[in-house]
Amino acid sequence: MSDTPTTAEDRLAELDLKLPTAFPPAGLYQPVKRSGRTLYVSGAVPFGADASTPVVGKVGCDLTVEQAQEAARITGLNLLAVLRDELGSLDEVAGIVKLFGMVNCAPGFTRTPEVINGCSQLLIDVFGERGRHARSAIGVAELPFGMAVEIELVAELV
Amino acid sequence: MSDTPTTAEDRLAELDLKLPTAFPPAGLYQPVKRSGRTLYVSGAVPFGADASTPVVGKVGCDLTVEQAQEAARITGLNLLAVLRDELGSLDEVAGIVKLFGMVNCAPGFTRTPEVINGCSQLLIDVFGERGRHARSAIGVAELPFGMAVEIELVAELV
Amino acid sequence: MSDTPTTAEDRLAELDLKLPTAFPPAGLYQPVKRSGRTLYVSGAVPFGADASTPVVGKVGCDLTVEQAQEAARITGLNLLAVLRDELGSLDEVAGIVKLFGMVNCAPGFTRTPEVINGCSQLLIDVFGERGRHARSAIGVAELPFGMAVEIELVAELV
Repeated sequence: MSDTPTTAEDRLAELDLKLPTAFPPAGLYQPVKRSGRTLYVSGAVPFGADASTPVVGKVGCDLTVEQAQEAARITGLNLLAVLRDELGSLDEVAGIVKLFGMVNCAPGFTRTPEVINGCSQLLIDVFGERGRHARSAIGVAELPFGMAVEIELVAELV
Repeated sequence: MSDTPTTAEDRLAELDLKLPTAFPPAGLYQPVKRSGRTLYVSGAVPFGADASTPVVGKVGCDLTVEQAQEAARITGLNLLAVLRDELGSLDEVAGIVKLFGMVNCAPGFTRTPEVINGCSQLLIDVFGERGRHARSAIGVAELPFGMAVEIELVAELV
Repeated sequence: MSDTPTTAEDRLAELDLKLPTAFPPAGLYQPVKRSGRTLYVSGAVPFGADASTPVVGKVGCDLTVEQAQEAARITGLNLLAVLRDELGSLDEVAGIVKLFGMVNCAPGFTRTPEVINGCSQLLIDVFGERGRHARSAIGVAELPFGMAVEIELVAELV
C-alpha cells in the first residue's frame, strides 16, 4: 500500500495535527524520565495549542462526554509534544505501552472509558498498531488546577 | 514435598478454580501489552464466570467489606484469564510484580487494603511466593460503569 | 568540589535526615518488588520516625497545604526507608524513575502538585539530579486508614 505512511511523523503530517508546545511541569518533576528502553511520561493535562486554554471542570456536570473526549484528545497531543521534545522525533517511539487515564468526575459519572478513548484514538491514529496499549480509566475526586482529565503514559523506545 | 504442585496451572486445578472468559475491553485499548519481559494488564473488573454478573456499587454503602473482597477475588480471576489468553498458559508468568487496586468507595470508607487483599490472596494461592507483589490500594470517586473494584497488574515473563 | 557529597547515603548524613523504621505492609503485599533492574515500591504513607504518628485527614479541610507537604516529605522518608531495607544502602539506587502521588482531598482542593513537591524535593535533595523523576499528583476520594497522602515509587538499580 504505497499510499500508507509508515512513520508516526508522516502520519502526524497527513492528519494535519499540530502539537502544542510541551507544557512546563507544574511542580518538582520532569515531563519524562527514561529507564532503559522504557519512557515514563508524567501526567499531562488538556492545554490547547497556545498553552492558554486548558479544559477545566467536572465531567458529567460542567462538561459533556463529547467535550471530555476532546479534552482527552488534546491531552494526547500534549503527551506527543512531550515525547517529541524528549526524542527529537516521534519515530523514536517503538510503541505505546500503557495509559493511566484519570477523569475529573461529577458524582455518578461512570463513562470514563469513553472519555479516555479520545486520547487512545489519537495514539492509534498516529502510531497505528504500535499505538495500541494497555489502559485503565478511572474517575478521581480532584485533578491539579481543576483540569478535566489527566493522562499518564508509558512508551517503549526503538 | 511430592504433593505440592509447583506450577500455576497445577495449583489452579488443585484449587478447582475456573477462570471466566477474558472480558473484551470496554474501550480502545488492549487487555494486555508486552514490553520486553514485562506484561502490563489493563484494569480488570469483577465480571463473574458467565460474564453476566459484574459486581457494582459503592463499598461501605452498597457493599460490605466481605462482598468487596469477593469482588476483588473475582477481578483477580479476570486478570488470570487475560494472562492465560495472552500466554496460553499461566506457567509462562515468572512472577506478579505489582497491583494497583482501586475501590469504588462510599464517603468515609478507608479499609481499601482489606478489599484488595481478596485479589492478592488469589495470586499468592496460584503463584506461591512468585505471586507476592508490590501494591497500592486506594479509594476512587467513580469506576467505569459503577464497578465495585478495578485492578491493574504488572507481571514478569519467564 | 571536594565539599559536595556524591552518594545518597552521604547526602542523607549531611542533611541529618533520620529514616523511620520501614513500616510493615497493611495487607497481603510486599513493600517492594524487583523486576530486572526496576524496583517497584508499594504505596507508602506518612508514618513518623517512631511509626506512631501517621498524618491523617483531608487536605484543604483538616490539613493545610503546608501540613500536607510535610506529610508528603515524611512519606518520602518512608519510601527511602523501604529502599534501604531492601538494598542495604541507598547507594544501590541508580535513580528515581517515577512517583504516583495521591492526596486525600477535601472537595475542591486542587493544589495536589504543591503537596507532592514535599516528597519530590526530598528525593532531589538526597539523590541529586538522579533523583529527578516523572510524576502524577492526583486527588483521591479515600486513602487507607484516612492517611493524608500515599505515594508509590519506581526506582532503577545500579
